[in-house]
Order: sequence, then C-alpha cells, then structure tokens
Amino acid sequence: MDNGLNNSRKDFPILDQQVNGEELVYLDNAATTQKPMAVLNEIMRYYEHDNANVHRGVHTLAERATTSFEAARDKIAAFINAPSRKTVIYTRSTTEGLNWVASSFGNLVVNEGDEIVISELEHHSNVVPWQQVAAKQHATLKYIGLTKDGELDMDDARQKITDDTKIVSIAQAANVMGVTNPIKELAKIAHSHGAYMIADGAQAAPHMKIDVQDLDVDFYAFSGHKMLAPTGIGALYGKEDLLNQMPPAQFGGEMIDFVHHQTASWKELPWKFEAGTQNISGAIAFGAAIDYLNDLGMDNIEAYEHELVEYTLPKLVAIDGVTVYGPHDPAKHTGVMAFNLDNLHPHDVATGLDMEGIAVRAGHHCAQPLMEYLNVTATARASFYFYNTKAEADHLIESIEAVKEFFNNGAS
Amino acid sequence: MDNGLNNSRKDFPILDQQVNGEELVYLDNAATTQKPMAVLNEIMRYYEHDNANVHRGVHTLAERATTSFEAARDKIAAFINAPSRKTVIYTRSTTEGLNWVASSFGNLVVNEGDEIVISELEHHSNVVPWQQVAAKQHATLKYIGLTKDGELDMDDARQKITDDTKIVSIAQAANVMGVTNPIKELAKIAHSHGAYMIADGAQAAPHMKIDVQDLDVDFYAFSGHKMLAPTGIGALYGKEDLLNQMPPAQFGGEMIDFVHHQTASWKELPWKFEAGTQNISGAIAFGAAIDYLNDLGMDNIEAYEHELVEYTLPKLVAIDGVTVYGPHDPAKHTGVMAFNLDNLHPHDVATGLDMEGIAVRAGHHCAQPLMEYLNVTATARASFYFYNTKAEADHLIESIEAVKEFFNNGAS
Repeated sequence: MDNGLNNSRKDFPILDQQVNGEELVYLDNAATTQKPMAVLNEIMRYYEHDNANVHRGVHTLAERATTSFEAARDKIAAFINAPSRKTVIYTRSTTEGLNWVASSFGNLVVNEGDEIVISELEHHSNVVPWQQVAAKQHATLKYIGLTKDGELDMDDARQKITDDTKIVSIAQAANVMGVTNPIKELAKIAHSHGAYMIADGAQAAPHMKIDVQDLDVDFYAFSGHKMLAPTGIGALYGKEDLLNQMPPAQFGGEMIDFVHHQTASWKELPWKFEAGTQNISGAIAFGAAIDYLNDLGMDNIEAYEHELVEYTLPKLVAIDGVTVYGPHDPAKHTGVMAFNLDNLHPHDVATGLDMEGIAVRAGHHCAQPLMEYLNVTATARASFYFYNTKAEADHLIESIEAVKEFFNNGAS
Repeated sequence: MDNGLNNSRKDFPILDQQVNGEELVYLDNAATTQKPMAVLNEIMRYYEHDNANVHRGVHTLAERATTSFEAARDKIAAFINAPSRKTVIYTRSTTEGLNWVASSFGNLVVNEGDEIVISELEHHSNVVPWQQVAAKQHATLKYIGLTKDGELDMDDARQKITDDTKIVSIAQAANVMGVTNPIKELAKIAHSHGAYMIADGAQAAPHMKIDVQDLDVDFYAFSGHKMLAPTGIGALYGKEDLLNQMPPAQFGGEMIDFVHHQTASWKELPWKFEAGTQNISGAIAFGAAIDYLNDLGMDNIEAYEHELVEYTLPKLVAIDGVTVYGPHDPAKHTGVMAFNLDNLHPHDVATGLDMEGIAVRAGHHCAQPLMEYLNVTATARASFYFYNTKAEADHLIESIEAVKEFFNNGAS
C-alpha cells in the first residue's frame, strides 16, 4: 500500500492500530491532526531534561526552557513569513486568537453604526466573537453569501464591504465547504475602504504555504493541533502597530512591566499578550511540528493533498444518493469533504463508517449559520492530511457504499 | 541519600542530571514542578492511541478522547471536593482563571463606589485583573496589610472588608512570603458583608488537601503545571449559581448551544466557558498528576514538606547576613523561602547557586506591590516539593555560605 507523502505514515504510531477489527483510517484531520514521533519526542525531551518556567529564571533549566520557547516563536514567525518575532503571540488556539482580536482590537476600532463583514461559511469562532462586538458597539454584522458552487461570492463581497466596514474577517480555508478564499484580494478590498482584514487560518496554515506579508492581512490566527502540534497551543499574528494599539486581553504574571498598587504597565511585544505561565511544552512542540512540516515541504504537502482530492472527490460525487457540499471540481476543492447520504442521518453514516475503522466527523462542524444557509442540520465530513493514502480513500468510498446498502436494507 | 517522599525521585527523570558539573538540586517548584513518568507516559499513551478532538465526534477515537478528557475533570473535581463536575472549568492557568472571574464576574457585580479587597502579598495575577475592574467600574482597590512577621494582618482584614466590599480575593498560599492565609475565615468575613470570596490556589493546591466546600469560597483558581501536570492547563472552580450568572469570557466552537446569524446561546456548565479546542492532552495528563498525588496522599505530602521546612528554615535563618522573608517559625512557614544576602543582588546569588547545580529563582516573583511593601526590588527564592530531600537542603545551605564567601572575597 502507498504510505502517504514521503512514506510519512511510519512517523505516526497512532495510525498503526485497528478500530472495530479494521485498520484505522483517520479522516478527521480538520478537527485535529495526529502527531509524529518527532513532536512527541520533543515533548518528552523537554520534560525529561529542560522543564522550567520561562523568562523569570537565571538558573540553567530556566535558560534552556526560555531559549527553546522563544526559538519556537522564531520558527512560527518564519513559517508564516511574519516580518518580526514581535508580531507572533502564543495563544491556546485559533478561537482564542480570534476572540482576542475581536474583544481587544474590535472593541477598540468598531463604533456605533459601523459594519463588520464575515461570510456564510465561517466557523463559530469567527462568528460569535463578532456578534459580541456588534452587540456591544451597536454595529451591524453582515454575511458575504456563497455562489451556487459554495465558493465565496466575490461580487457580494464587493457589495457588502463598504466605507462603513471596519472589520472583514474570513476563513482562508473553509472547515465544511472545502474551499479556499481569496484573502489577498479581500484584504485589498477591505483596505481600500479603510477596513481591517482578519484571516482565520485554522484550516489553511496546515495545508499550504502562508505569507502574511503577501496576503497583507492585519491579523492571522491559527492552531497548532491542526498541524501536528499538541492541543492547547496556537498563534496569533498581527501587524506590529496594531498589536501596539491593542490592549491585552489577560493580565498578570509575565506580561507586565511595572505593577504599582493602583496601576500597571505592560511589557513590549510579543510578551504584552502572554499573561501567566504559557503552554511552554506545547509551544516548543509546535516548533518541532513546524520543523517536520518544513522537512516535508508545504508545497509538496499541498500538491499531494490535491492529488488525493483529485482521486477521491469524483468517486465520492459519483455515489448515487450522495450530496457533496462545495465545488465538485477537484481543482477548487480542498481535502475537507462534507457530504450527506439521502435519507440517512450523518451520525448514522459516521457510526457506520466507524464500524469499518474509518474516522469521519458528523454534525454541524461549528458552522450552524452555514447549516442554516445550506438548509441542513448536519453533514458527515471526511478530511485528509498528507499521511492519508489513496487506499484509504478507496476504503472510504467502498464503505460509504456499504453503509448505504446496510441502512437501505435495514429500512426495507 | 534520602530520596524524597516515598522514594519518589526515581519517578522524575529530569532530576537525575548534572548542571554545571553538580547534581541538579531543583528548588524552583513555586514557578513550576517537574513531571513524573506517570504523567509523561499518559501524554504519550494519549497521542499514540486515542488522540482526537473531543465532544464533536462519533468515531471511536473521539469517544475515547472525550471519555478521558471528562474523566480528568471528575478527578479534579474530587481532588478539591467540588460539589459537582459542572463547577470545574478547564483554563490555561491560575492567571486565566482569575482573569475570567475578574473580567466576567467582577465586572458583573462590582459597581461604582464598591470596593475590591486584596492583600499586600498577592501575585500580579491576583492584582492587575482587579486593577482593571476597579478602573472600569470606578471602584476602589484596597490592600490588606501584613503583620511584622509577614502574615496577613487579620485585624486589618476585618477593617478593610466592609459592607462596601464586593470582592475579596486572596492567595491561599503566598508565592513569596511562605505563609498560608486563613481563606475559610476570610470567606466568613466576606460573606457576612455580602461580598464574594475568591482564592488564588496556585501555591496551595499542590501542597495540601483542598476542600472548596469547607472553605466556602465562591471561586478557586489553580494551575496544573505547579502540581506535576503539563504547562497550559489549569482549573477554575466556581459555585454553580455564580457560574450560571457569569458570562463566558471567550466565544466560539464547543461552548455554544445554537448560533444564528445575529445571536447565539451557550451550552450548560461546564462547557459554556470552554471555547475552542481545549488543551486535551494537558487535561488528561492533569488527571494522571492527580492520581499520582492521591497515591502519595496530600496529607503525607504536607507533612513531609513541613519536615523539610523544619529542617531547612532554621539553618537558612541562622546564616549571617541572610534575611529570610515571612515568619521564621517553621510551624508558620511553607516550603517557599524567599531570602536576600546582605550587599548581594539576588540575581548574583541565584547565578552563584546555579554554579553549584542549585536552581532557585531571583526577581520580583510577579509580586512588585509586595516588593514595594518590603522595600526591596527582588529576592532569591528556594521552593520545595515532596521530591526534594534534606541532603538537597544541606547543599543549599552550604552553597549559600559558599556564594557569600565567593562574593565577599571577590569584593574585598
């Protein structure tokens, strides 16, 4: 059997197991990815040799921990071509990054009557924080619609983004519709109206080369755990002058310069935003994840995943009774494939596939406004990463057929 | 050599190393503790067998991950005798827990002219969030003073906590002064005035049995990484009716019930506060840390650490030219020992001790108001845990003498 990009499967011990008597086929990568031994070994190395709290110590372990923690920041900054390490803030997740931008920066710049523009295909983490800002500031939240193929309707984007717009916040890659959005173009439109451009990079950064300077986004949020790193660590990029204007979202240890009894002042970037002990081992392991991705090459990852889409999507679309959301042209589709089977609840589909060892997700995928837009309550979703194989795609397709068969017979 | 409580040192691989040619003596446990193999193995087990995103999935790995993640919450709830698992919220850290209580609950209940009472010995994480609430609500922030021994002045507490007080927030164990504070008594005083009682448990929960119901605190925040768990995970306990009133601090995936285009509603407790993918492996490993602590027995840990204090503190106090902060009576002192040497900067002391393989911290320990109160800019700090030994205490005492000698000769 083929073994993922550059024979990478061997690096992921979790993939070598049986589930319900079948080889595990892990196709839930849009929810979280698996971790290679290089990342797990780095966590162990850190805790077995260097663990200490960072920045505050002069002893050897504290210096080693601090060096690794800050070196990981440099790796993350380079990975997205950030102009400076100061512009990369550690967060728990994309969700936290977007929340901080909304609550701290959004509430700073959005005034009564202003407009915030998102889209119909956003994850809740890029919807609810903006609802909060809109409610607080008496601003309006607008949604860019989709074409009938499920892509962002750029004509509608040009209509919705106006001189009243203060914020445009859009996913670079959608977590259900399987499309990527033209962030660079959206940033141009937003900036031409004096608005700020924010990108939710959770589903994009793991799968393609990111250049925040070329995109010219004002903020870019992404998560480690969707790109081989542990859970509980993410990063927020922001333009330096904007981060300087933005108040911290949390206060306490490490982020202060001076604390007097009644007042306090903050450290310079990036530490101003990092209150309390950070996920130090998570950050260091995020650095190891980036090393691993760089060794494979993001262009190779993107190309290989595209090959998987070209192989899988037409077969999925061709199954009688299957509805695949988003564009059916593989050239326009990412490795996130949401689908439904006629007359079957997606939970039953996912449960049936699990009996075949295949892990897919079923539900609203934290995108209820999109579900409303699509007029469904839920979908099944298979999402691929570079360690998945064409043989696994074949097993998915065969198993969908089998699930369909099983339930149709059961229902007859 | 003695080997820590119940020969526990063998469980901590990091302790078996040399630093600057000497056996490592790790006495920076108030900053972060080391991790036993039981915790590290649980991280590896999780990532090598079960890793998936929680709650959202019906497939086998997602079910296993969810079960472990929620079982860890049960362990944490039992560890502090919380009345219900609903009252235990995962956070990044104590700092985050205190920030959420301040920004979400504090801003809800504190009005213009109200008073917030903290103390002179608080960590910045229990100072700055309250400065923010006070500034926003036009409330007053008051500090309970200390006795000349460095204990909380309870007479002053009774004076400062009045019917104007809305919030009392105090560390259960101090991170510099080496004292524990009578949280149960403070809660009684606070409640008798209609105020809410919040305890910063960061330095207490790792070292003694905690019973939030007996303490009758309204909120209790603590960190995993100071009690054997990985970095990036902590917990916040709150009384159920207060958590129900308190708005979430972050919004997005997982914490919602329904999201419509313009509005959203939240899940029930505890998930209402857990937006986005949590530090899943950190939470599960926190559960393993609690298992390990329970196996040793918190009463045993407290008794053994007290033995270390009785052994060490008098020797430290007896060194000519050493000032030890907090009470000199070992019965009143915890394993956190802050000190200075006449005419030496604490950074030089810490650097000198590092040359002897001893890791202590030097600085303001995120307690600048206390430093101002003590009229120093910094101190050295040795902080013990159950894996430390009397032999290590001896090495500390001898090395402080040697550092003193070295610098005095150098200066002569």
